[in-house]
Amino acid sequence: MPKITPRSLSTNSHLPFGDMQNSPFYGLDIITVKQFDREQLTYIFEVAHEMYEMVLRVGSFDLLKGKILANLFYQPSTRTSSSYTSAMERLGGSVIPINNVSYSSVTKGESLPDTIRTLEAYADVIVLRHPEVGSSALAAKYAKKPIINAGDGIGEHPTQALLDLFTIQEELGRVDGLTITMMGDLKYGRTVHSLARLLSLYNVRLYYVSPENLCIPAEIQDEIAAKGIPQEYLTDLMSVLPETDVLYVTRVQQEYFEDPDQHEALKGSYMITTETMTRAKNEMILMHPMPRVWEIDMAVDDDPRAAYFRQMEYGQYIRMALLAMVLGKA
Amino acid sequence: MPKITPRSLSTNSHLPFGDMQNSPFYGLDIITVKQFDREQLTYIFEVAHEMYEMVLRVGSFDLLKGKILANLFYQPSTRTSSSYTSAMERLGGSVIPINNVSYSSVTKGESLPDTIRTLEAYADVIVLRHPEVGSSALAAKYAKKPIINAGDGIGEHPTQALLDLFTIQEELGRVDGLTITMMGDLKYGRTVHSLARLLSLYNVRLYYVSPENLCIPAEIQDEIAAKGIPQEYLTDLMSVLPETDVLYVTRVQQEYFEDPDQHEALKGSYMITTETMTRAKNEMILMHPMPRVWEIDMAVDDDPRAAYFRQMEYGQYIRMALLAMVLGKA
Amino acid sequence: MPKITPRSLSTNSHLPFGDMQNSPFYGLDIITVKQFDREQLTYIFEVAHEMYEMVLRVGSFDLLKGKILANLFYQPSTRTSSSYTSAMERLGGSVIPINNVSYSSVTKGESLPDTIRTLEAYADVIVLRHPEVGSSALAAKYAKKPIINAGDGIGEHPTQALLDLFTIQEELGRVDGLTITMMGDLKYGRTVHSLARLLSLYNVRLYYVSPENLCIPAEIQDEIAAKGIPQEYLTDLMSVLPETDVLYVTRVQQEYFEDPDQHEALKGSYMITTETMTRAKNEMILMHPMPRVWEIDMAVDDDPRAAYFRQMEYGQYIRMALLAMVLGKA
Repeated sequence: MPKITPRSLSTNSHLPFGDMQNSPFYGLDIITVKQFDREQLTYIFEVAHEMYEMVLRVGSFDLLKGKILANLFYQPSTRTSSSYTSAMERLGGSVIPINNVSYSSVTKGESLPDTIRTLEAYADVIVLRHPEVGSSALAAKYAKKPIINAGDGIGEHPTQALLDLFTIQEELGRVDGLTITMMGDLKYGRTVHSLARLLSLYNVRLYYVSPENLCIPAEIQDEIAAKGIPQEYLTDLMSVLPETDVLYVTRVQQEYFEDPDQHEALKGSYMITTETMTRAKNEMILMHPMPRVWEIDMAVDDDPRAAYFRQMEYGQYIRMALLAMVLGKA
Repeated sequence: MPKITPRSLSTNSHLPFGDMQNSPFYGLDIITVKQFDREQLTYIFEVAHEMYEMVLRVGSFDLLKGKILANLFYQPSTRTSSSYTSAMERLGGSVIPINNVSYSSVTKGESLPDTIRTLEAYADVIVLRHPEVGSSALAAKYAKKPIINAGDGIGEHPTQALLDLFTIQEELGRVDGLTITMMGDLKYGRTVHSLARLLSLYNVRLYYVSPENLCIPAEIQDEIAAKGIPQEYLTDLMSVLPETDVLYVTRVQQEYFEDPDQHEALKGSYMITTETMTRAKNEMILMHPMPRVWEIDMAVDDDPRAAYFRQMEYGQYIRMALLAMVLGKA
Repeated sequence: MPKITPRSLSTNSHLPFGDMQNSPFYGLDIITVKQFDREQLTYIFEVAHEMYEMVLRVGSFDLLKGKILANLFYQPSTRTSSSYTSAMERLGGSVIPINNVSYSSVTKGESLPDTIRTLEAYADVIVLRHPEVGSSALAAKYAKKPIINAGDGIGEHPTQALLDLFTIQEELGRVDGLTITMMGDLKYGRTVHSLARLLSLYNVRLYYVSPENLCIPAEIQDEIAAKGIPQEYLTDLMSVLPETDVLYVTRVQQEYFEDPDQHEALKGSYMITTETMTRAKNEMILMHPMPRVWEIDMAVDDDPRAAYFRQMEYGQYIRMALLAMVLGKA
């Protein structure tokens, strides 16, 4: 007869180490922006702001000491992977970095559920980037430990949208009442879709500026419209720039244009320069999910309204908050 | 004349930091299952069980704080590499991850002994996976710090066998008196060879179930027989399943069959399904070294006798125990 | 209006966490050996020697606890990358390992300044290896956090030269008055160029032993001569070996010889063997930046004068010192 009932192994429970069970996010998977209501966002941002203040004051602290994050990237992403690593390390936790899964068991034919159930034998939380839509939801279905979606193909990258919204909140002090202009590739960019969905929980006005072939999908527009959010579609920035509070620029990939000249021509009207900035509000912030290529001229970087590097630092605080919350420590 | 005698550098001694020199495993290399007697196994399993209880109670603890593990993988293995990383991190130690040695000095022609002597300048213990048989023994010959063999080609993977045996001990409370059935590729699978060797130190009965072309090598059978262990060779599981206490299944790789249809045909009799499980003991455990492909149907995962995911967690405790022991902390 | 002024974010300042602002190296970039004077070298070596003594006594300590190093390697280098990882971990700090940047944002066209400004949102110090000369200086121009050059193509690898000099100081107790012989590829090896530059701050005699086609560049010789350092150029070691205090050997790559036989022929006179060592001083030390191929016979490794493995351990102490110094903790 067994000395130990298998049920007591840590993989069989979310609560192995006496964690705070009453934390509202305890053990939760972070899969999609659709799972959040406005109250939850406010709570996440409060915790993220506390993280920011703690980092500013003491750099790091041992809130997650002894906890292990498996950073499972089926696709490379230095930025996102580094951000989660630093978030975990600033909280005193450890990381299992898995950056080249192509070299792993996967090449021996292992399924995602098996890989996830293997890793949760070692880790307390799993961050997953995977090229297939729905992979994080699939992983969460099988995992007993929390899964955080770090991008599932053209699906979602919910923590990017959270950090974008947190950036707006921190930089401008509010979200309600703002005019947000999104510009660039609004068709394939999952970033802007997720952000638009989150913004629709607030009282905002949205402008979409894109080439005709890259405009925001009707499906998203309908979803936003159903929340009563005013939206407008344009191909040129200039008419809406003066009233814009947040200008959110994304990359326009050459591959979406059959004619390379068409892509080249865009730079005339779609590149943000110091000249563009002279027409913007003094209080406006300029955002970009990065990496940028030509969309924002480097000369703009010194403008205090250029918020895209700060945006990445806010991302660290959002990820610190989420890790602490799903592990029952915030 | 030298201010410091070179002899005092940490690479020149196993005992740089006041460690417990009287620990029986202190400074030891873990190269092969053949190095262990039954008394040592009992001791390892006692320490591993303590690790398990500590993890269950507090998650992590600082037994190896300040110690550094070099995780040197010449071949990729997410599972094994992650397992050592988590084992070290749960003990408060740190890891130097070296996962793509093909990109390193090795490509400049460096020998394994040189690479090992480089890494021991930085690390306190080295875990080595390498495609060549005997590589860990070679490394241990040159290293002053302990080497742990994490797989040397078709040679050995001793900690896999230790964790397999520990799983049996923990799940069934004993090893003596058990009937263990190994099934699948018993010819090329180093896992089953090493496990059979360890089991031969106990009072067990062994059944081998495999296709004719993949039966266990005569060399292993002779070794086991010399210990007086009853063994039987079969091509079909059903006759021995009802009396089996441990069913250990391994992958059967298609590459060993000239005719793909032959491999396909195996699935009929060699795949473990929920139907198979109805004929097994209530107290039986089903094991697999993972990754699995088709050998165990996913529907079996929910059966409490399916021990293969727990098996990986037991692996973490075995590796925590070994790291603590060779570093003189247990 | 903003709740938080962007200026308070950690990326906007070198002093986020109350560090020692009066440390002479605080916040400094380590880009080239040319930036150091003799007084600074003495200070670095004092700190490195303290690091060595601390490691010998306690293994690791928490001087940099809570600090994060981004280890950004655009080119693979197990040795250097492992050395920085262990240096940071022995000081209680954490590491973001970025070893395969080819798989990252860079492939999406991101510039080095953008990658650096991204990483400094997460890390407190960045170690950079990059194939292009001047890349570290470029990174330092944009970064607000300290940059440490871990090799910029055929440019510099300043911490290698520092650890080489530190090895001489520790092993022989002094640098002034020594005769240093450099042998091998003295044309393309950035290691010997940087070391020669540092040595020219001391009262030394330099011998250069190399094949005709691989002799030290005139530019370096002129620089050294301007400091009044006696230099001599030879193609054979034997005449200067008996008076040599430090024999510094480097790899001679086959690719620099059109005729493979020419390269093969070198082994006769350029390989250090136990026979060579019988003609050297008892107090001489033999150094090599590693990896070696055939330049030093493995039989020499057991000679106490063979300092090349100790050299790598001294490297750890130099890197611990530099990390602590630029982070304001030493």
